[in-house]
Amino acid sequence: MSALAPVLARLEAGHGRILAELVEFARIPSVSADPGRADHLHAAAAWVAAKLAAAGPLAVRTLPTAGAPVVYAEWLGLPGAPTALIYGHYDVQPEDPIEQWRSPPFEPAVRDGRLYARGVSDDKGPMLIPIKVAEAFFAERRALPLNLKFLIEGEEEVGSRHLEGFLAQHRDLLQADVVISADGAMWRIDEPSLTVTSRGLAAVELTLTGPGKDLHSGRHGGSVPNPLHALARLIASLHEPDGRVAVRGFYDRVRELSPSERAEIAALPFDERAYLAQVGAAAAEGEPGYSTLERQWTRPTLEVNGLWGGYQGPGSKTVIPGQAHAKITCRLVPDQDPGEIARLVAEHLEGHVPPGVRLAVVTGHGAPAARTSRNNPVLQAAQAALEETFGVRPLIVRMGGTLPVAELFQRLLGLETVYFSFSTGDEDFHAPNEFFRLERLHQGLAAWARLWERLGG
Amino acid sequence: MSALAPVLARLEAGHGRILAELVEFARIPSVSADPGRADHLHAAAAWVAAKLAAAGPLAVRTLPTAGAPVVYAEWLGLPGAPTALIYGHYDVQPEDPIEQWRSPPFEPAVRDGRLYARGVSDDKGPMLIPIKVAEAFFAERRALPLNLKFLIEGEEEVGSRHLEGFLAQHRDLLQADVVISADGAMWRIDEPSLTVTSRGLAAVELTLTGPGKDLHSGRHGGSVPNPLHALARLIASLHEPDGRVAVRGFYDRVRELSPSERAEIAALPFDERAYLAQVGAAAAEGEPGYSTLERQWTRPTLEVNGLWGGYQGPGSKTVIPGQAHAKITCRLVPDQDPGEIARLVAEHLEGHVPPGVRLAVVTGHGAPAARTSRNNPVLQAAQAALEETFGVRPLIVRMGGTLPVAELFQRLLGLETVYFSFSTGDEDFHAPNEFFRLERLHQGLAAWARLWERLGG
Repeated sequence: MSALAPVLARLEAGHGRILAELVEFARIPSVSADPGRADHLHAAAAWVAAKLAAAGPLAVRTLPTAGAPVVYAEWLGLPGAPTALIYGHYDVQPEDPIEQWRSPPFEPAVRDGRLYARGVSDDKGPMLIPIKVAEAFFAERRALPLNLKFLIEGEEEVGSRHLEGFLAQHRDLLQADVVISADGAMWRIDEPSLTVTSRGLAAVELTLTGPGKDLHSGRHGGSVPNPLHALARLIASLHEPDGRVAVRGFYDRVRELSPSERAEIAALPFDERAYLAQVGAAAAEGEPGYSTLERQWTRPTLEVNGLWGGYQGPGSKTVIPGQAHAKITCRLVPDQDPGEIARLVAEHLEGHVPPGVRLAVVTGHGAPAARTSRNNPVLQAAQAALEETFGVRPLIVRMGGTLPVAELFQRLLGLETVYFSFSTGDEDFHAPNEFFRLERLHQGLAAWARLWERLGG
Repeated sequence: MSALAPVLARLEAGHGRILAELVEFARIPSVSADPGRADHLHAAAAWVAAKLAAAGPLAVRTLPTAGAPVVYAEWLGLPGAPTALIYGHYDVQPEDPIEQWRSPPFEPAVRDGRLYARGVSDDKGPMLIPIKVAEAFFAERRALPLNLKFLIEGEEEVGSRHLEGFLAQHRDLLQADVVISADGAMWRIDEPSLTVTSRGLAAVELTLTGPGKDLHSGRHGGSVPNPLHALARLIASLHEPDGRVAVRGFYDRVRELSPSERAEIAALPFDERAYLAQVGAAAAEGEPGYSTLERQWTRPTLEVNGLWGGYQGPGSKTVIPGQAHAKITCRLVPDQDPGEIARLVAEHLEGHVPPGVRLAVVTGHGAPAARTSRNNPVLQAAQAALEETFGVRPLIVRMGGTLPVAELFQRLLGLETVYFSFSTGDEDFHAPNEFFRLERLHQGLAAWARLWERLGG
């Protein structure tokens, strides 16, 4: 590996400048869930395209979709060598509840070896790493160790809703041997890990309408349906008292874990008490008969992500609101179909809606669960690169979250995805005070260089 | 009554100018529930004081409380004649959901014989009427038919929270023979009515805390308590499936209606189908065994006025929120104690909080139910004044809403309250698009003049 030393040294010398670039990137509020921020999405795409163009002789294109554009770049200077398609995203989660941020979400701040800002861990920091590694290879060697294609999208946080059409349209352009995802998050900070499954997603939003308008709860209270009461009853009906999801057919396609799968998970180092303390939960809770890791990685769930109706301001307002709302997402395991699960949840809601209120259900984006085979050669090279960087053999783990792109790459391009991200699961992405560890940024730069060198050799 | 003709003619000639003054008054966003609007409360108090001072030789004072000031005015020019204490309030309900207003809540607009703006029906329009009637008497006669004291407060919409202390402090100043309230709302637009009971109020707000912070529902979903699920279950526990309130002891002090009380209510003209169409409800709903009017007027209720937690913005955000919230008010009937009911509701919540979340309960303002005796001479004079104005005998009705001041006047000053308001229950106070009928403004001016003339004679 001594041939790699100058590249690694160059990356190390560049830590300060790379951090400054990430700070600049994180200032762009590229929130894909907010239709009012389309301009910022375009600014983030332009920023990524400029960085790729500056990295070396990559052919960079910004390709339109019906939503946010995809930034594409390629270098195919080694005919016969393998080609990797690098995946990442430049969009970020919404920042609210904004009042809980200790520093503003789009004014990046370094504290205690961490960079705090919305999107730095998911996925701007991890996504910037391969671009900077490509730049270092070009600077030292005028070449990369393998052929690369970059695909950086802007709609991951809203279910990659135009990526399927994009992949179908650009199937030839995107031909490769493997996908390496800079998105995905390592399991923990204390051991490196590689993820071999991720859960899928099905989203449903519902509105209950009682009276057509807000009514005075003094004059009318006790005599007309209150949509908030109906909402509480309806949401409560979605789970059994013991924690199982009560939707009929929800578990029908779920394969039970084999004894060896359970043993593999049970053998992982996992301190449940420390985990609960870290997330601030008093106790674990969930489907009976499964451990916490089994619940997070191998069992489907139904979670309410938002619930609202009536008056939320200071003081009191004695109102029976005209409407009540809820947002629900289910996490899915292999063999569950997102469309079918959304339909089953909608049918449950329709079957349990209390009298006197009208129900409207909208199905959101969905994605099946995804898997990477244990004998994928890139997975093996990634294990070696991580072991070299961290000095310990990485754990093989699973992911509770959803990376719907893996399923799309499999279905449309015939490619498996290897997750090679340097964020970690505790970095509060999707929550206030998201951060990215500077140490992980540095480790990621070295590990990506090693991975490519191995794949090219 | 011919002595009254010049006063009535003067009021009629002044309709346009009085409407213009109400428009000016309604532009002031005097929302007492919003601590950020204290300046507007003071501006509204100053407006009322100026109008009283302009009406004639009234001694006007703006008296401080720990909250919004009370505007007080008196004319005691007829020693030996009766003295009425006129009650009203210059504060208004919050305006949200603001997006449902067809014209901005604080930019009054006349459409189809109605003035639309927050507070015009509750209570700025009805409250302005006795001031303009006093002005007309002074202009025509340099005197009123009876002694008057005005007490216009600015905290009615937040439970008149400093009025009790104010009445205790100013007991001597406020000596009178009766209270006449410009607040309270008539039952319906098609028949005039007088209200002889109103329901009380007990308010409770609750917060459930699960994890200490928002968590990613992919990574953690299915393994930690979700406060939104707990909130739904807890709120659903507050009612039996049949509609009764499930809180232990809630009905213990409630006196059952006598057969004659039920007969009086059943004899009132009430078209339930038309009522439901007006409020936009598909069907009546509530405690079994009671009619809709009995439920609204004679039975206690528990209504959730607001419910929230998690993500409410556009698109989706896959989060398990750290907290969930609800605002609850109960309406009370005679003999129920607001403090006791708030305690029983809090005990129910504590007894039903699902495992894994922490509950915090805050008790808000309360007021017992109130009654006016059928043989109160002012009630009789009010019946006559209404019959003269409308040409039909007014109905004797009850009120589902709360006028806590009546209980305070009874307890602290020994005075009964007669409600003489010209808003009607369909005018969407406490909801978007509140309005006040111009016709009612005109009828109110004539009826107040007739009432005072009768009480003075």
